[in-house]
Amino acid sequence: MAKPKVCLAYSGGLDTSVILKWLIEQGYDVVAFMADVGQVEDFAAAEKKALAVGAVKFVVEDLKREFVEELCFRAIQCNAIFEDRYLLGTSLARPVIARAQMRVAQQNECIAVSHGCTGKGNDQVRFELAFYAIQFLVQPSIKVIAPWRLPEFFERFAGRNDLLDYSAQVGIPVTSTKAKPWSMDENLAHCSYEAGILEDPDVTPPDDMWKLTDSPLTAPNTPEEFNLSFEKGIPSKLTTASGQTLTDSVELFTTLNAIGRKHGIGRVDIVENRFIGIKSRGCYDSPAMTILRAAHVDLEGLVLDREVRALRDQFVTFNWSKLLYNGLYFSPEREFIEKSVLASQDTVNGTVRLCVYKGAVSVLGRFSETEKLYSAEESSMDSLIDFSPVDTTGFIGISKIRVAKYGQAKADAGESLSRA
Amino acid sequence: MAKPKVCLAYSGGLDTSVILKWLIEQGYDVVAFMADVGQVEDFAAAEKKALAVGAVKFVVEDLKREFVEELCFRAIQCNAIFEDRYLLGTSLARPVIARAQMRVAQQNECIAVSHGCTGKGNDQVRFELAFYAIQFLVQPSIKVIAPWRLPEFFERFAGRNDLLDYSAQVGIPVTSTKAKPWSMDENLAHCSYEAGILEDPDVTPPDDMWKLTDSPLTAPNTPEEFNLSFEKGIPSKLTTASGQTLTDSVELFTTLNAIGRKHGIGRVDIVENRFIGIKSRGCYDSPAMTILRAAHVDLEGLVLDREVRALRDQFVTFNWSKLLYNGLYFSPEREFIEKSVLASQDTVNGTVRLCVYKGAVSVLGRFSETEKLYSAEESSMDSLIDFSPVDTTGFIGISKIRVAKYGQAKADAGESLSRA
Amino acid sequence: MAKPKVCLAYSGGLDTSVILKWLIEQGYDVVAFMADVGQVEDFAAAEKKALAVGAVKFVVEDLKREFVEELCFRAIQCNAIFEDRYLLGTSLARPVIARAQMRVAQQNECIAVSHGCTGKGNDQVRFELAFYAIQFLVQPSIKVIAPWRLPEFFERFAGRNDLLDYSAQVGIPVTSTKAKPWSMDENLAHCSYEAGILEDPDVTPPDDMWKLTDSPLTAPNTPEEFNLSFEKGIPSKLTTASGQTLTDSVELFTTLNAIGRKHGIGRVDIVENRFIGIKSRGCYDSPAMTILRAAHVDLEGLVLDREVRALRDQFVTFNWSKLLYNGLYFSPEREFIEKSVLASQDTVNGTVRLCVYKGAVSVLGRFSETEKLYSAEESSMDSLIDFSPVDTTGFIGISKIRVAKYGQAKADAGESLSRA
Amino acid sequence: MAKPKVCLAYSGGLDTSVILKWLIEQGYDVVAFMADVGQVEDFAAAEKKALAVGAVKFVVEDLKREFVEELCFRAIQCNAIFEDRYLLGTSLARPVIARAQMRVAQQNECIAVSHGCTGKGNDQVRFELAFYAIQFLVQPSIKVIAPWRLPEFFERFAGRNDLLDYSAQVGIPVTSTKAKPWSMDENLAHCSYEAGILEDPDVTPPDDMWKLTDSPLTAPNTPEEFNLSFEKGIPSKLTTASGQTLTDSVELFTTLNAIGRKHGIGRVDIVENRFIGIKSRGCYDSPAMTILRAAHVDLEGLVLDREVRALRDQFVTFNWSKLLYNGLYFSPEREFIEKSVLASQDTVNGTVRLCVYKGAVSVLGRFSETEKLYSAEESSMDSLIDFSPVDTTGFIGISKIRVAKYGQAKADAGESLSRA
Repeated sequence: MAKPKVCLAYSGGLDTSVILKWLIEQGYDVVAFMADVGQVEDFAAAEKKALAVGAVKFVVEDLKREFVEELCFRAIQCNAIFEDRYLLGTSLARPVIARAQMRVAQQNECIAVSHGCTGKGNDQVRFELAFYAIQFLVQPSIKVIAPWRLPEFFERFAGRNDLLDYSAQVGIPVTSTKAKPWSMDENLAHCSYEAGILEDPDVTPPDDMWKLTDSPLTAPNTPEEFNLSFEKGIPSKLTTASGQTLTDSVELFTTLNAIGRKHGIGRVDIVENRFIGIKSRGCYDSPAMTILRAAHVDLEGLVLDREVRALRDQFVTFNWSKLLYNGLYFSPEREFIEKSVLASQDTVNGTVRLCVYKGAVSVLGRFSETEKLYSAEESSMDSLIDFSPVDTTGFIGISKIRVAKYGQAKADAGESLSRA
Repeated sequence: MAKPKVCLAYSGGLDTSVILKWLIEQGYDVVAFMADVGQVEDFAAAEKKALAVGAVKFVVEDLKREFVEELCFRAIQCNAIFEDRYLLGTSLARPVIARAQMRVAQQNECIAVSHGCTGKGNDQVRFELAFYAIQFLVQPSIKVIAPWRLPEFFERFAGRNDLLDYSAQVGIPVTSTKAKPWSMDENLAHCSYEAGILEDPDVTPPDDMWKLTDSPLTAPNTPEEFNLSFEKGIPSKLTTASGQTLTDSVELFTTLNAIGRKHGIGRVDIVENRFIGIKSRGCYDSPAMTILRAAHVDLEGLVLDREVRALRDQFVTFNWSKLLYNGLYFSPEREFIEKSVLASQDTVNGTVRLCVYKGAVSVLGRFSETEKLYSAEESSMDSLIDFSPVDTTGFIGISKIRVAKYGQAKADAGESLSRA
Repeated sequence: MAKPKVCLAYSGGLDTSVILKWLIEQGYDVVAFMADVGQVEDFAAAEKKALAVGAVKFVVEDLKREFVEELCFRAIQCNAIFEDRYLLGTSLARPVIARAQMRVAQQNECIAVSHGCTGKGNDQVRFELAFYAIQFLVQPSIKVIAPWRLPEFFERFAGRNDLLDYSAQVGIPVTSTKAKPWSMDENLAHCSYEAGILEDPDVTPPDDMWKLTDSPLTAPNTPEEFNLSFEKGIPSKLTTASGQTLTDSVELFTTLNAIGRKHGIGRVDIVENRFIGIKSRGCYDSPAMTILRAAHVDLEGLVLDREVRALRDQFVTFNWSKLLYNGLYFSPEREFIEKSVLASQDTVNGTVRLCVYKGAVSVLGRFSETEKLYSAEESSMDSLIDFSPVDTTGFIGISKIRVAKYGQAKADAGESLSRA
Repeated sequence: MAKPKVCLAYSGGLDTSVILKWLIEQGYDVVAFMADVGQVEDFAAAEKKALAVGAVKFVVEDLKREFVEELCFRAIQCNAIFEDRYLLGTSLARPVIARAQMRVAQQNECIAVSHGCTGKGNDQVRFELAFYAIQFLVQPSIKVIAPWRLPEFFERFAGRNDLLDYSAQVGIPVTSTKAKPWSMDENLAHCSYEAGILEDPDVTPPDDMWKLTDSPLTAPNTPEEFNLSFEKGIPSKLTTASGQTLTDSVELFTTLNAIGRKHGIGRVDIVENRFIGIKSRGCYDSPAMTILRAAHVDLEGLVLDREVRALRDQFVTFNWSKLLYNGLYFSPEREFIEKSVLASQDTVNGTVRLCVYKGAVSVLGRFSETEKLYSAEESSMDSLIDFSPVDTTGFIGISKIRVAKYGQAKADAGESLSRA
């Protein structure tokens, strides 16, 4: 009789190799799944290792395009940012990876999906909430096996040495390279660094930690200029200093990553608040996303109505970012929020001229050929065309009604004019 | 019989000199008032000119300390920022200037205050809403004379040449230096640049425009490190690379400005939305404020509760910034908001290690000797002390209830797993 | 040569009759426009009077259907309410009236529109912001004549006696009925009452003031039950106690008004905050709207996801209501908000069983044949199908992490268990 | 050696009597704790039963005053309401009960606290999050025993019959009265009804279910009027129709309950969203709270600044209510929010004249002797004192700038004037 099959999110590393073997020990056939979201990876070596450990099948899926177009560009439309700093690189990748893993599970008639996320992090939540939202489209009875939350697993493998001993014992090939003193997760949007020596929030990350960005200190001494165009808030064209023009989403994105890498753009080092309520230190380098967000925010200044922008900033940006961080991409509330943001982007058409230099991205100028909210004539202090200064007197006369009441109450209460 | 007196906010420039003379023509005695909010200014020359034009008195008030302590530091506690970019330098100065002008008006028994703000900008609103809130503490009947909104003035002085002609005619000394092709407003928090050639939002500002920052391109090739400490969210100590320690608010602030200037920190170039509904292009350089905000945001990551931070970000930061921009510092809603933000800062105690280099400010690390929300032990993926991974399974089990319903509805509606 | 034409919003009352005549005196031909938004009105008498005063034309437009379907039902989908009490009856009517008046102005080649709103109220703002948004669809150069804000008018007609004297003088027929000691505005959604004796907020409105509702004190001693069904949040069917079934929007609405009138449903008496910053006392009776809102809010409890509801309550309901109140129906921000709310209503399908009695509307029960978010099985405390109580332990275990930190900080600070 | 002690929240009912016995079986001494939060209860009988079952001690604590003053009145200041309908009666009681239970646990040197809440409800979360926040003030190592979430308990007692059988077997006296076909929770603020026959949301609750309110159908045919005064938003005086004056918080509250009961005030029947994500049908009758909230909302119309009110409505009311519902009273975010709301109440001083009749509460009028935000003079359409209608023209002239841009864009896009 055929064994039940499990689709495991496989990384090629120590943890998921042990999990792969352990799942086989539990009586499962294992389909090893890898997502290609743009990370630097030797997929052939990973395949070889997975099959060597005992996987019945190895599947890699190229998700780069859907990752960029569906998630990264949507984040840019939302000006997404978590806790004022983090551009959500990992959070954005999880939905496409989880969806692909469920597709692979379905195609291979798996009765469960499994992953190697630890029990205290955000990723387990992101993967599993996605699985549970998607399961009905696949097979409602599909199970999730999270070994790092199963006592029989986490008590057996209490430390790295237990994993290494087990690997030696069962013949899992262990890469000779010494483990980094932190953990990483890489995709097109960013590379993240956490744990290990980074757990002391006062330890400055070593410069060779950053994988996607060169150091600003050694970046070129000459700024590099380029133009980014948007259509309905979506990056639509990149024109480089050399005159190269890119319109394909993935090419545009990877070219921006290359430009950003060279100039050290997008390094972030923060203490953030995980969904489960623990504070955690994370470092991220996100070259393309940093440039795209700066350009999009700038263009909106030119072409978006003030009140739409204010409502969007307070409501959409804040909530969309929080939802994504907490793993709620597949949720009714994310769909609800996106209806408004998509509508708001209809006018976000134009071009931003940018410059990168030594770790910073600057805006040199911006223009739109179609949108007319900005008018130099109207803005000008020197022109009174279509504008009567007397109106402003009335505007102030009305706006002051409430503040005058406020002042009168203060006076009645005996307050004085001295410093508060 | 004594003439009625007007207290005029005097800048020493062409506009307010003409206004001074014009007010005298209208039958007033004029008290010329200047606020020292840290701008580079020849106050003696301004006094000489004001008296030459005919002012009965010249008063300058040093407002630097109240500006930094009451407004700038409060803005830092709020992480204040307008439309994602502008640190509100001008908006922050207006309340202290307006209050001081009203004090001077009161001391000199003026029946009106006057200013030289144009009829399309934000500053007229900020000054006048402040005046109208404060008037009851001074003299409820005090009037505001805004010449640039009076037809008898703005029709007479329709262009710069009219002002120059009048100056020549009435003997107002005109500085020979050619006017800048933009207008500026400087204080300790920033210098702003707008109008003139900047009205084309695609014109890159010339590098020699920036008054408070050296160019990142010519900034030192060596990063400069320093430490900033906060007590209850207020900057309390700056320790420089050379070991110098500053705790006086104004000294700390001006030293940060000097450090930031040298390394080109805090240049911003945006299209923003004025209170009166017109879009406007503004450039700002705010060295100290940029550094202080980056440090404060970072420290809050370490010491502020997640939900307090989220409510503060969505509610306080957004609204406080909008209020200040729109001239509503003296308002019941600003007082209302501040009660919460002040309370939230009780735990914002600690030190941030920073680095500035070629236009960018980076965080090297942070620590707090008193606050304990962050725990490396708890954060560590390797430690299960005080933490059972089984709890997370339950957490996900409950959190998934809603998303599973969502997925089921999607499945019932016939959606598939393919790209959205 | 033809005189320039003005389209005047004409009510048949004293004010707009005087304005009509005054406009003619200023050299205009006047097209008198009346909107039929369901108010009780003798349109024939109004026409006769308008023509007698000198209007060149009288136009009445039936706007009941677009008022109910476009505005009232949208308000119900939004659970719209202003300052916790007011169902926005007047605010909802203004956009359809203004749009129709502009259509009539266009059809009659008017160069201006005019209205009789006073200079301190909300309606002038609502009408004119609508006019200014719509003008480009009609004739960009169209003017607005607001006599009550023109010194030459308001100084001439300083009181009611001036209006009466003028009427006598120019032969405007004055209705002999004594004016009510308050002003009213009626449409299908409500009747409003303000000013006059109501300006003392401690004066209880006389019972005979209420025009659309009988007194709860004299309402039937027997409750009346009926069912309301919604499709995508839109009222789609009313089934009365007698078994009558109504599906036409206007019939459904007017029948609900009749039911509500009989049972005294929907009287509101508040002090509210006008857009221009003045507090004002207003009374409103809104029978159908009160019933519809109660039913819609109830149904959403059954069929709307929790987080969608929470975001909608905090964001959409609040802001949509404020926008409508302030006259910003024709605005980019209203369009922005509606995208989300419309999407959220896809699942709002079901029926609410209601009861009205002596001024109160109660919900007797509700059901949906299509939506399945509610599950009695799942909700039941007695059933553990699909649910492990152990999950809740984990959920609490994770949720407590932050509050335990909070408690520990309190303990460290020496707080005790006694009352706060 | 002494057995370890557990403090059990004891109700006198079947569940907690079985739990009491079961805890003894597990080797604990049990201190039975009852909170007096104003429910109708035979405390002597409960004590007798607890001791009969084997409790080593029985403690009842009178929490009525702290419940009313600390929680109920704070809720009134916040206009607290959950999902537009529920006045949070149970949610408000949990913090004071949990705190008292922890005090009793501390005084009796208990090593654990226990409760009889089921595993799918809100109350377990509310109690336990409170316990975990408070534990450090008592004994950091204190445990929580939640039998309905322990497999060894819930698998043994799978249905009511198992509880009855066990009771018979171990000699727990079972009240002969037949159980209600729903469960209830009563305190001064309300009585709640859920589960059982109420799980079908289309079943109308039987009229004899409601415990705190007489039926509106049989309520007096004569309305009852009374006055409620507030100081800083706190109910400070009740003056009844008979001239009785009450100022003591608990007396005022219970008298309002009596008035409301007689007139059938405050019945609510909703489907709500539990914290754990399940929808649930709940019925509540809350006479005093309903009256107090109506009065407080009304008074704020008279005395609260518009923008403070708007920020409070959107931010404080929404979030405070959600926090309380979800059991997060003891949390940093609740403290954060309250700082603003308390400040906002400084001006909420005045009296509301009210009337109750057949299930509805109406406002007859309101006045304040100290607050002056409302001015009949200013509000009056007939008075132009301190007000120039010309200002409104300017106000509209400025406010229209954005909407005219919007209209122009629509026109450019070819939209027409017809119905949207």
